[in-house]
Amino acid sequence: MNKRKIGILVSGRGSNLQAIIDCILKGDLPLEIAAVISDKSDAPALERAAKAKIAGFTVNRREYSSKEEFEAKINAILTEAGCELVVLAGFMRILSATFVNRWQHKIINIHPALLPSFPGLDAQKQAVTYGVKISGCTVHFVDEGTDSGPIILQKTVPVLDGDTEDTLAARILEQEHKALPAALKLWAENKLTIEGRCVKILA
Amino acid sequence: MNKRKIGILVSGRGSNLQAIIDCILKGDLPLEIAAVISDKSDAPALERAAKAKIAGFTVNRREYSSKEEFEAKINAILTEAGCELVVLAGFMRILSATFVNRWQHKIINIHPALLPSFPGLDAQKQAVTYGVKISGCTVHFVDEGTDSGPIILQKTVPVLDGDTEDTLAARILEQEHKALPAALKLWAENKLTIEGRCVKILA
Repeated sequence: MNKRKIGILVSGRGSNLQAIIDCILKGDLPLEIAAVISDKSDAPALERAAKAKIAGFTVNRREYSSKEEFEAKINAILTEAGCELVVLAGFMRILSATFVNRWQHKIINIHPALLPSFPGLDAQKQAVTYGVKISGCTVHFVDEGTDSGPIILQKTVPVLDGDTEDTLAARILEQEHKALPAALKLWAENKLTIEGRCVKILA
Repeated sequence: MNKRKIGILVSGRGSNLQAIIDCILKGDLPLEIAAVISDKSDAPALERAAKAKIAGFTVNRREYSSKEEFEAKINAILTEAGCELVVLAGFMRILSATFVNRWQHKIINIHPALLPSFPGLDAQKQAVTYGVKISGCTVHFVDEGTDSGPIILQKTVPVLDGDTEDTLAARILEQEHKALPAALKLWAENKLTIEGRCVKILA
């Protein structure tokens, strides 16, 4: 059976990438990662890709004269590799509306908070500062806004007295490693439909 | 032992009032409800109070020439009854900054969403419309903002495909009936301390 191909955009350590790779290797996730693209040449995520024999690419923003050209290169790699879906796994750049519209309903992001609470940067720090008692993570389709697209699934964690940004981030990350593969599995099995801004999950 | 006295402000059916009464009757909540105050004379909550032999009061906004006088009457009843804490249990009016400051850190509200998501009116409808997969309720101290005060505890519920505002509200309400007595129990046992905008819970 031909597995559906996805591309994964990263900027850092790639622990969510690793979670996806591990699920695929265990046979739990019927997908092929056709490309891992990093905007940083030294991202440990690229080493994880290489170790798993996945094609890795660096697309350095500074080597392109415009954001448009930078994203055109990313788009070309994804298209060339036959990707049907783009997964943002710790990719630290905002994609333009042009790119998002080109991949409408075909970009998935994971955010370390229970959206719509705490969008944007430093979500875990925002949660600790606000004083919520429950936080978590959200997997969602990307739209033109910041962390505002249709939600696929969410997982919760308690926020404990004494938590710092780092201890909360570690607790949420454990759930991210479950949530992102689970969402991708639903997508791979064609169980997701988007109605307006709501995602319905077929039983 | 003298139990700490609380006053409860209501506007409607009073199901959260009933949850508190039931916990007290079961011996699970070391508090005395010294006054139930409704801004509507026909609120079923007043019948629940009467049935439990709790002093009930109607304070009708239209009988007072200003919000200040209306709230002064509420304040007088609470003070007269010896209340140390004011609980908003479906009270459908915004309290003035004057009243909130008079009772600083001594007003507790329950809101049917995981704050800071979906503050204000129609929280359950907001959640269904947004398409979150998890919602819940939040018990918090009241500050001058709308549903923005320090959070005591939160409980979650899943949002299911096909949920309407009403089905979600019913699922959240079950958790409200647990969350509000649980928060009041922590308060009654002197286990809550407010640090900045965070509530710490003593073990």
